[in-house]
Amino acid sequence: MAQAQAMQRVVEDVVDEMRQRSDRGEVASYIPELAKIDPRRFGLAVVDAEGRVATGGDAEEPFSIQSISKVFTLTLALGKVGERLWTRVGREPSGSPFNSIVQLENEKGIPRNPFINAGAIAVSDVILAGHQPRETLGEILHFLRHVADDPAIAIDNDVAASEQRTGFRNLALANYMKSFGVIENPVHLTLGVYFHHCAIAMSCRQLAMAARFLAHSGRDPSSGHSVIPAERARRINALMLTCGHYDGSGEFAFRVGIPGKSGVGGGILGVVPGKASVAVWAPGLDASGNSRLGRIALEALSRRLGWSIFGA
Amino acid sequence: MAQAQAMQRVVEDVVDEMRQRSDRGEVASYIPELAKIDPRRFGLAVVDAEGRVATGGDAEEPFSIQSISKVFTLTLALGKVGERLWTRVGREPSGSPFNSIVQLENEKGIPRNPFINAGAIAVSDVILAGHQPRETLGEILHFLRHVADDPAIAIDNDVAASEQRTGFRNLALANYMKSFGVIENPVHLTLGVYFHHCAIAMSCRQLAMAARFLAHSGRDPSSGHSVIPAERARRINALMLTCGHYDGSGEFAFRVGIPGKSGVGGGILGVVPGKASVAVWAPGLDASGNSRLGRIALEALSRRLGWSIFGA
Amino acid sequence: MAQAQAMQRVVEDVVDEMRQRSDRGEVASYIPELAKIDPRRFGLAVVDAEGRVATGGDAEEPFSIQSISKVFTLTLALGKVGERLWTRVGREPSGSPFNSIVQLENEKGIPRNPFINAGAIAVSDVILAGHQPRETLGEILHFLRHVADDPAIAIDNDVAASEQRTGFRNLALANYMKSFGVIENPVHLTLGVYFHHCAIAMSCRQLAMAARFLAHSGRDPSSGHSVIPAERARRINALMLTCGHYDGSGEFAFRVGIPGKSGVGGGILGVVPGKASVAVWAPGLDASGNSRLGRIALEALSRRLGWSIFGA
Amino acid sequence: MAQAQAMQRVVEDVVDEMRQRSDRGEVASYIPELAKIDPRRFGLAVVDAEGRVATGGDAEEPFSIQSISKVFTLTLALGKVGERLWTRVGREPSGSPFNSIVQLENEKGIPRNPFINAGAIAVSDVILAGHQPRETLGEILHFLRHVADDPAIAIDNDVAASEQRTGFRNLALANYMKSFGVIENPVHLTLGVYFHHCAIAMSCRQLAMAARFLAHSGRDPSSGHSVIPAERARRINALMLTCGHYDGSGEFAFRVGIPGKSGVGGGILGVVPGKASVAVWAPGLDASGNSRLGRIALEALSRRLGWSIFGA
Repeated sequence: MAQAQAMQRVVEDVVDEMRQRSDRGEVASYIPELAKIDPRRFGLAVVDAEGRVATGGDAEEPFSIQSISKVFTLTLALGKVGERLWTRVGREPSGSPFNSIVQLENEKGIPRNPFINAGAIAVSDVILAGHQPRETLGEILHFLRHVADDPAIAIDNDVAASEQRTGFRNLALANYMKSFGVIENPVHLTLGVYFHHCAIAMSCRQLAMAARFLAHSGRDPSSGHSVIPAERARRINALMLTCGHYDGSGEFAFRVGIPGKSGVGGGILGVVPGKASVAVWAPGLDASGNSRLGRIALEALSRRLGWSIFGA
Repeated sequence: MAQAQAMQRVVEDVVDEMRQRSDRGEVASYIPELAKIDPRRFGLAVVDAEGRVATGGDAEEPFSIQSISKVFTLTLALGKVGERLWTRVGREPSGSPFNSIVQLENEKGIPRNPFINAGAIAVSDVILAGHQPRETLGEILHFLRHVADDPAIAIDNDVAASEQRTGFRNLALANYMKSFGVIENPVHLTLGVYFHHCAIAMSCRQLAMAARFLAHSGRDPSSGHSVIPAERARRINALMLTCGHYDGSGEFAFRVGIPGKSGVGGGILGVVPGKASVAVWAPGLDASGNSRLGRIALEALSRRLGWSIFGA
Repeated sequence: MAQAQAMQRVVEDVVDEMRQRSDRGEVASYIPELAKIDPRRFGLAVVDAEGRVATGGDAEEPFSIQSISKVFTLTLALGKVGERLWTRVGREPSGSPFNSIVQLENEKGIPRNPFINAGAIAVSDVILAGHQPRETLGEILHFLRHVADDPAIAIDNDVAASEQRTGFRNLALANYMKSFGVIENPVHLTLGVYFHHCAIAMSCRQLAMAARFLAHSGRDPSSGHSVIPAERARRINALMLTCGHYDGSGEFAFRVGIPGKSGVGGGILGVVPGKASVAVWAPGLDASGNSRLGRIALEALSRRLGWSIFGA
Repeated sequence: MAQAQAMQRVVEDVVDEMRQRSDRGEVASYIPELAKIDPRRFGLAVVDAEGRVATGGDAEEPFSIQSISKVFTLTLALGKVGERLWTRVGREPSGSPFNSIVQLENEKGIPRNPFINAGAIAVSDVILAGHQPRETLGEILHFLRHVADDPAIAIDNDVAASEQRTGFRNLALANYMKSFGVIENPVHLTLGVYFHHCAIAMSCRQLAMAARFLAHSGRDPSSGHSVIPAERARRINALMLTCGHYDGSGEFAFRVGIPGKSGVGGGILGVVPGKASVAVWAPGLDASGNSRLGRIALEALSRRLGWSIFGA
């Protein structure tokens, strides 16, 4: 109880600190619908191992989770095809921007990891597997609602449409992989899945709830039910640590010290193995395309709550 | 006591398993002196938080630690110049082989991280800082003997000479950085330091002992004395996790789940925050230049002893 | 008259020599329709300044001209927008394979030259300029029929359909450029033009006739009418010399010494300023994607007829 | 006679035009000795097939020929080892800056062509072939004095020393090639030759005289003596056309239309097969490292004198 109050106080402190900062970075402009978001929004939610939730700021406000969705589609793809997934996508940090196509040319169309755009498109293709995008998206939403224990999670169709109208670079990536046989479904169907799962809207609270199974050895800590095997949870966390922030992944590990996945909507999902799951939302981005204040907030939280996986 | 026996039994089991495997990879051939090593050598040593040591196989046999030395030169450089180090070397995984020069051209001579060759050469240059290589090497040895609590650690001059005769690619990297002003000392002096610290010979036991301060919040766990601040230890561990195995870093994190640093001599140093430090030696390398059996052995150990930092 | 007989004899000699060679390279396999072509086909046609035509082998047989068409679409685009074209496409050899996307990433979506795939797609986009592909293709055919003085030239719709079904890499290139704003029309319309003009079928005779204006200062040498300004003809020839054979352009200049443009259908068009235009067809390709025997035949012709622009 | 006067008048007109331009580019700064040169210097010399010389401006003033020397070292290397040279250096334009090392990594240490720095260093290594640099430099000077018919040509040792002190990037290139076995002599000896032949000082008149054999089928047009076989002259000219201006080679071919080789000292040597050789000197460089006014002057000359090899 005292611990819960302490956690709530730390969350509030961090929210207050962040509100006073003016160095917020730039809101993503290349998806027109996202460019409309107020850069002053800030939300934070933590769920601990006992299921206690601490929130602050705009923690209940849904935002476009964008690439954070890739953690959940990766989970689903591994559930479907297991380790065979790794014939279609690698497991190494890319050393390149999120939407680079150079690496694909050098490595025969195999994306470096499931969290850069090309890799996540390949993961969408694995989940689609001949079905209709509508069914596949239903499955993704069903999974998210289940792990977040919240039936209200939905796709923001305006964002999806906005991305679909302007997503030429993702079309390039998908067609490029298709030319190497890495994409098996028709490109427009695979991208239909990809653009829509990136357009899922969730609040910080919903995200932190949804990631509990990753923090707790693959289990829902409240029910104790297994969502995925413990080893798979560890491996997804490892991928988040090494590849979760594009070409800023090393920096995030260095400063924050927990597995995390960012999205250009300004969200970051963090996993503290055995301890907590956390989500932050601050729409302004840094040069690597990661939430600027989000990272700083998680660094502060991690330091105060002793979260780093790299030592006390 | 029972725990110590359990640890010793696991170490012996893993050594036995590894002895029976025939898929040992290839011994590094580009340094003539290393090519002479018997690929069947195998050693393993673990030191836990209570200072208990478990060893197996050739754990007492010194071998060329090569790039593992970069963990300790990084520690020294941070001690000398602190966070200013990061103006001369980055903190991101490279997505390239250990000796790539392409990345330097694209990023104005700044190496991506302190563990690829270029980055470690820049770190050597920072430590050298106008002194004589002999003094600097004395300082590095002094530090290693101190943290390992073993005055017998020394440089293998035959290996150093072998590298110096054939190290054209490192000469290229150093001169390239010099052309951008990233190397400040004369290239042959900086490389003198680099080639010699890579040629330090240590046993698995010595390495595991030397890394105790990284596993235990910057402190020597036996004396309780602080070697470096706790936050610095966490950050070095984070860099080992994201960048410690060149273009196989993602794979190591995925499979083993602990910070580690490999060397082309076949050694791998592992750090298990709060729990243990570990060193393994198996000279055969995989395609990324990391010890093949060494990684497999650490994967087995990590699984049996519950070491992964990514969850139980 | 004697000169015409000499030219005819040289042509026949070269055709005989080529028929005896067995090192024909591989027929392009990535466009299914082209993979069906008999690799033993060989045709050759020369038109001199006096309008005399010498032919040999399958010189009257139409084949898929593929990238040779890019010489003519470049001519049309320069006619439409003049030097403004060079804001959308460069003039430098690429140092990369014909379908590389790496260069585009490094240079903000601007293709290096109008003869690599990306550059030719940008040229198609310039010609299309808001019209319907059907009109634009009509214009291209009209121009070719005019300069070749042959109303029979047509598009092979099977080849066009074959490319359109499998052209994922070109879709990637076009969408990639679209993401930088280099492509202005809808991608599928621009690529409709591109795939269809590459699928134009012409014989060696028709091609050699069509290129007369490039060999003769922009004029039709029989009528004396100007097709394009002399300076433009020189510049197109210069581009053919430096960029006409993808990453084999240096080799072609070195060995043959005349401006030329190859296509993966096995054709090569050559321009000998002031003297002749020439076309050769041999479907087997070398590693750079250029007709293997075609280049060898032109090397022999160039040597015997003193065609090199680099000296007597 | 009238023709000679006409040529002289065109040369003077061009010199006058150039003197009035203020857009001179920047003098190379990375070789300290070259940075001292007055950017207003301008010289021009043409030698025609009859041996008549037309000069203007500072045509008699020696300047550092830098990379123009690579034309002559290539000629010597081909004389020594013939076509075997092409196992150590390629013949394709590079698509990269003059001092790029990226291409070497992608192509196993084989430089793309003999005119980029790496390629010219490999050529120096071929000429050196186990001899002493002093002998080899003597041979190069002997050859230049012979073809220029001028015993006064010499090396500027201040420039050589300046380059040697600061040539870290060339040291990187040479060591990099050495690591692949492409350089056979000790790196410091090969670079000794390279830095010194780049530091040869010649006037425009001397350069234009020295290149007569390239313009006239391998022969000295005054004596009629053969310097190299005609085919070799054609091939060297072809390489100058495709690779002589680094990543501005396409542009030079497009605008000027003659084989040429530039140097960072601000010189450009041009070859007009069958007609003339020409040298220009204007120290200010463009973004590709080629003489800005030099190129513009040659474009004007080429247009007025009908020199383009791409048509009348």
